[in-house]
Parts: sequence; C-alpha cells; structure tokens
Amino acid sequence: MSDEQLRTPAIDEDRLAMRIEELGRVGQHPDGGLYRALYEPSWNEAMDLVERWMQDGGLHTYRDAVGNLYGRLEGVESTRSIVSGSHIDTVKQGGAYDGALGIHAALEAVLSLQSTFGRPRQHLEVLVTCEEEGSRFQSDFWGARAITAGIAPDDVDRIVALDGTAEPLREAMQRQGLDPNATGNAARTDIDAFIELHIEQGRVLEEEHRTVAIVEAITGQVHLLVTVTGRQDHAGTTPMDLREDAFAAAADMAGRIERCARTMGRPAVATVGSVVVQPDAINVIPGQVVFTVDFRHPDADVLRDMDAQIRADIAAVQAERPVGCHIETLMDHRPVPMDPTLIELLGRASDEVVGYRFPMPSGAGHDAQVMARAIPTGMIFVPSTDGLSHTPREHTPLDDLVPGIRVLATALHALAY
Amino acid sequence: MSDEQLRTPAIDEDRLAMRIEELGRVGQHPDGGLYRALYEPSWNEAMDLVERWMQDGGLHTYRDAVGNLYGRLEGVESTRSIVSGSHIDTVKQGGAYDGALGIHAALEAVLSLQSTFGRPRQHLEVLVTCEEEGSRFQSDFWGARAITAGIAPDDVDRIVALDGTAEPLREAMQRQGLDPNATGNAARTDIDAFIELHIEQGRVLEEEHRTVAIVEAITGQVHLLVTVTGRQDHAGTTPMDLREDAFAAAADMAGRIERCARTMGRPAVATVGSVVVQPDAINVIPGQVVFTVDFRHPDADVLRDMDAQIRADIAAVQAERPVGCHIETLMDHRPVPMDPTLIELLGRASDEVVGYRFPMPSGAGHDAQVMARAIPTGMIFVPSTDGLSHTPREHTPLDDLVPGIRVLATALHALAY
Repeated sequence: MSDEQLRTPAIDEDRLAMRIEELGRVGQHPDGGLYRALYEPSWNEAMDLVERWMQDGGLHTYRDAVGNLYGRLEGVESTRSIVSGSHIDTVKQGGAYDGALGIHAALEAVLSLQSTFGRPRQHLEVLVTCEEEGSRFQSDFWGARAITAGIAPDDVDRIVALDGTAEPLREAMQRQGLDPNATGNAARTDIDAFIELHIEQGRVLEEEHRTVAIVEAITGQVHLLVTVTGRQDHAGTTPMDLREDAFAAAADMAGRIERCARTMGRPAVATVGSVVVQPDAINVIPGQVVFTVDFRHPDADVLRDMDAQIRADIAAVQAERPVGCHIETLMDHRPVPMDPTLIELLGRASDEVVGYRFPMPSGAGHDAQVMARAIPTGMIFVPSTDGLSHTPREHTPLDDLVPGIRVLATALHALAY
Repeated sequence: MSDEQLRTPAIDEDRLAMRIEELGRVGQHPDGGLYRALYEPSWNEAMDLVERWMQDGGLHTYRDAVGNLYGRLEGVESTRSIVSGSHIDTVKQGGAYDGALGIHAALEAVLSLQSTFGRPRQHLEVLVTCEEEGSRFQSDFWGARAITAGIAPDDVDRIVALDGTAEPLREAMQRQGLDPNATGNAARTDIDAFIELHIEQGRVLEEEHRTVAIVEAITGQVHLLVTVTGRQDHAGTTPMDLREDAFAAAADMAGRIERCARTMGRPAVATVGSVVVQPDAINVIPGQVVFTVDFRHPDADVLRDMDAQIRADIAAVQAERPVGCHIETLMDHRPVPMDPTLIELLGRASDEVVGYRFPMPSGAGHDAQVMARAIPTGMIFVPSTDGLSHTPREHTPLDDLVPGIRVLATALHALAY
C-alpha cells in the first residue's frame, strides 16, 4: 500500500444511475419488489448483465466453482489481487440497493481507476458473490464461504430449499452446470484485501447528516429463545396474588432487557421481536409465553457482559415471580473486527473525499464478516434513506452514493497502484 | 321468609355422589370431557335423565318455551315460587360440576326438604336452565334471559351456530320441537327468590380452607382491545434511541396494568391474556402489537376507577414513547349485586351450617347475574379443587359439597316453609 498522497478518480455518475436502475429491474416479482434467489433464472439474468458490463469495460471475467463472478483488471507486477464487491442475490420483495450497490460501486471504482490511472500494479477485481441472504436455501454467505474455504463437504446435501420443494442444493448446482463436489475449488489464497461497500440498512448516517461511514466491526449477535411457564387460570376468578401469569413475567423480562441495552448506550441493541402467548385468550391468564431476544454489540467483551446481564435480568424476574423459565441459545456469533490497516486507509480516504471520518459498527451481517476470517477486510457504509432495507422502497439518492464510491476508489488506488 | 330458628335437613350423600357420576357420563366427547350443547342429542339425554330423577322424587315437571326444565314441589298456600338451579349445558371438553352441580344441589335440597318437612307453603322449584355457556350458539344465558324476558325478537335469527354449520338458532329450536316465535312465553313474574349454587372456578376457598362462600355480587367486567403502533425496523441497525418499538411499549403498558390491579388489592383483577405481535420475527423490531385487557371488580365505582387508571396508564406510556395507540372497548358489563336480604339469609344459614359466613364476589359470569335483573337472587359457592373449571378435571370432593347444599336447603326452607 502506498503511503503517499491519496488519489481520487472521478465517478461516471450518469452510467452509475442508469445501471442501478437497469439491474434494479432484474427479478421483479409478482408480489412486488425483486427476488433473485441463488441459481434461479432471475439470478442468472442479473449475473449475465453484470458480466456484460464488466466485459464492456475491458475486464477479464470468470466464474468460480460455486458461481461467484469476478471481473479482473490485470495487474502489471503482482499475481495477487485487491478485491471489492458484494452479493447479487436478494431477499423476497427486496430492493435495488442491498448487495447490488456494492457491485455497482466496485465496478464504477475499478473502471474509473482504469480510465484515470491505467493498469494497476496488483490485480484489481470486482467480485459478485453468488449468495448472501439465505432466501431460498439457508446457505447464508454461500459465496463468501466458498472463497474462504468455509463450506463443509456435506453442505450441498444438508442444505435444501425452504420454498416447499425441498430441492437439495446439490441439485440446484447441477441445474446450474456446477459440480457440487468441487466447491473447494472456489477457495482463494491470493487476495490481499477485500473491501465491501453496502447501504447502512439503518438510520444512523441519515440522523447524523453523514454520507460515508467506515465500518469498524461487524457486530456480534446472540439469539435466545426464552420459554416462560406459568399456570393457565381463569382471568375472573384467580386473584392477582394467586396468579402465575407467564405473560406478566415475560413483559417484566422484556422491560429489563430493553433497559439493559438502553443503559449501555449505543451501539448496544436488544430486541424482543417474537412473542407467542398460550392460550392467547382474552379471559384466560397466559400459561406459557415463548419469546425471542436478539442482542448485539461489536465489542466481544461487552457482548459477553450483555449476555450475562440479560440472563441475570431473566433470572431476577423468575426469582420474584412464581414462573418457570428455560433459555435456549439459538445463535451466538462473536463480533468480527475489520482489518485495522484497512480501517485507517479508508479513514484517510474518507478525510480526503468528505473531510471527516465517521466510524461505526455494522449492526447487520455482511459478506465482509465471512471474508474477514481469511482475508484482510474493510467495509464502507452509505446511507439508506429512512433506514429502509429488504423492501422495494430501498433508496439512496445519487448524491449520497458517490462520496462512498469515491472513498472506495481512493482506497483501491492506494492498495493496487 | 321466616325469622325463626333455621332448620337444616340432612342430604342423601350416597344418591348425590351416584347422580354426579351418572350425569357426568352424559355427553362424553371423543376429544375428552363432556360436550352438551343446547338442543343437541347429549343435551336431550341429560335433560331427560334429570327429568326422570325429578319425577322419581315426586316433583311435577314441565318445560318452558325455550326448553328450560322445572321440577316443582307444590306449595300449600301460595301460587308463587322459590326457585333454585343452574345450567345443564357445558363448554366443549367441560366437566361434571360447572352448572350440573347447581342442579344436583337444588334437587337434593328440595327432595330432602320434602322428606323432612313435607309440602312447603310456597312452590319450591328445581330449575335446569337450557343454556348458559354460549358454546355452540353465542346465545349466552339463553335460559335465564328467557325467564327474565331478556330475549329480543330477532335473536333466534341473529344467533347462528359457531361450529361451521351456521345453523340459525331458529332451526335448532324447530328441530327441538320448540316454537321460535314463542320465546316470550318462558318469562316468569311469579318467582320470589332464585338461589344458584355453583363451583367457585377459582382457588380462593381452597386457599382460605373454606367450603362455603356467599356471593355478594357478580363482578363487573370490561374488555379492551389495545392496538399499539410503532415502526417496524431492523433489529441490528436501529439504535435503541431511534426505535419506535411497539412491543416494548405494550410490555410497559402490561406492567402498569398489572400493578394497577395489584395495588388495588383483592378482588380487583386485570389480565393481559391475548398478545399478537407483528411481524413477529426474531430480528425485526415489532411494528404493531394488539393486546387485550380484561379487568373486573364487583363494585361499580371501583370498576370505573380501574377503567380510568388503566386508560391513564396506557396514555402515560404513549406519552413517554414514540408509539401510537388505539383503545377499543369490546365489553363493558357493570357489576350485579346479589339481593341484600338473600345475602343475609344465606349468611345466617352459613353460620348455622359451617359456623362462619365467608362473603366473596364472583369473578365469573353466572345465570344468577341475569336472573337478578328481574328476581331477588342469591348465590352460593363451593370449592373447585385446584381452581379447575371448564376442563374434564373439574372436581370437588363430596365433603366439600355437602355443607354448601345444606346451606342452600336451609335457606330454601326459610323462604318456602
């Protein structure tokens, strides 16, 4: 990486706007929004479109053993690569920005660098990962896992479609012309840096009137399933002091869990998102409540403290009220810090382009968290209007996109030239 | 009513036990428990069985225009009646005590009075009301409403079966050989007192180690449907201070509602029994919660205070949190006090039989609350083991039933002889 003065190329804003619109029409679903699921026709259409754009720009394109697409600007000196990109698949009723914007950003940055500075020292590659969302198959991060050798041999048989067909991932790969036994060939050991640009999917940048953030870490995330068991009783004939009300206890727990995250302050978050009450009748005291807790923090030590505090809160309610309680841990993902050298470089680039550096954690999961297991990884956020994501209403005005893409191009220049 | 020394006849405990068991087998349902719905075969079988028992005891039996069954012990002086009884219908998967026990108690009390003291001054009547539970038809208190002239002309057409057949009540009456246009003929103006004995359906008597309670009032009852509207957001990317979490607000409201009833103390009760969260996903901040509030008090003024306090609690949460809130009143039943003279008589009888009087409100609805609109009405509670009702596991040991039946017989003697 160069320590000299940073160089920021101009971005072709008209082409960017046209391409966001054009890719945003691929995979339109009868229910509204986009649906580009792994290896499905709409996914192939989108992949082919991006590959044509890459080829139009003079990049050398190739696809790997799981269907990830690369567009390479050959380096003059090194055989190692600097890579940027994101995923092309969408959730059902998704929008034109989640994932896709990171592809547009990488392509525009690389094409702009090529036209401004010519061939780089190291290979510069635009990466389109095949799958991140886990929409049709629960194969989350399929593309990034393949690149980082994170696919288990039995995954192609274990993972089946969730759309009712129960098609094994193996068969979907065969339909796509891929060899399900060759996923290991997608692993790369020649990448020196991966940078992903993504919409924030929240309202922090908008509230702070910023257009670029440098991600410091992908948040750690714990999912708990809490079952509170009380006693189903008649709502009219059971005095308050004889009740074993599972919902009253669960509401008390939820209040304390919310207070825990509020007291810790940003970026701690805790959410009780799913609540199922039994028997759920107006005149019956709830006998059982099952609720979920999702809590997140980008600092592993603080996440552990939150975990202890939330379990203590639940235990305190159980000690005060005549209910039973069982906690099942559904997920326990530790935080993934971004590479410090890349954070610093992206910060300098942000200083250069927008005159500030705004560090923040990512509260959502991204390809970057998987890539970071094996490859020095950095991440840039641009705003999501009104915090919207996973909806056809995803949108970010061009003026709020271009600064982030220029930060990306600046960093790629420093790394590859 | 006599002011002299109270007279308490003996109860035939063996016959009582046998008949509880025999009637408790009528209407056994494949899903378990009993199901005797208005005008259905199991209901007819039960009615016929009780009518045979009445006739075996020398009572004159007759049925009225909606199918209520009476067994009359003719009075020697007056043409007016003292009546006791309860309903023969059950909920689905009901038990052998709810309703039925009031019929057994009235029959045993009257037969015992007859064999001990001969014919009364006033008519003494055992009443089997045809319907109270609203199980197949939402015709709640059909029998008691008919007796108190509380049936509207269009009820037989408006009320249809809830079991999928949508059979109008009119047709069910015709199948039963009843004239749907003659329900007005069931109204009675010649009843001087109605006393209902019923299981408590709660755990108060059991906890207090009492076997008899004198009901002072049927509780007033309000049902609210509360819709809390927040903003559905990403659970990972939305900081706590930017959230509009509908469930966090609803849990806060539920906590305050519970505290309101606890602070007021017995017999105030408040229950959040049904809670539906949207979209109900582990990683999405709830955008909407709809929950119910059932609150009850036997004192009309206190019930009004509770109503004001609960609405103020909900408004306070809404003022503190960025959520919208809408309250719909689904039910607003004022309390129904029992007749003071009958409360005093039953209290004296309880003193005589068990050596104490234990007054309490009824937290559930009963035929007595409808009868009280037109007829001086009193009510006796006997224990429900473990508070169970509306389940095949309903049970009260014979030793806990007999004292209440003796209190009933003592009061009926004082009223009718």
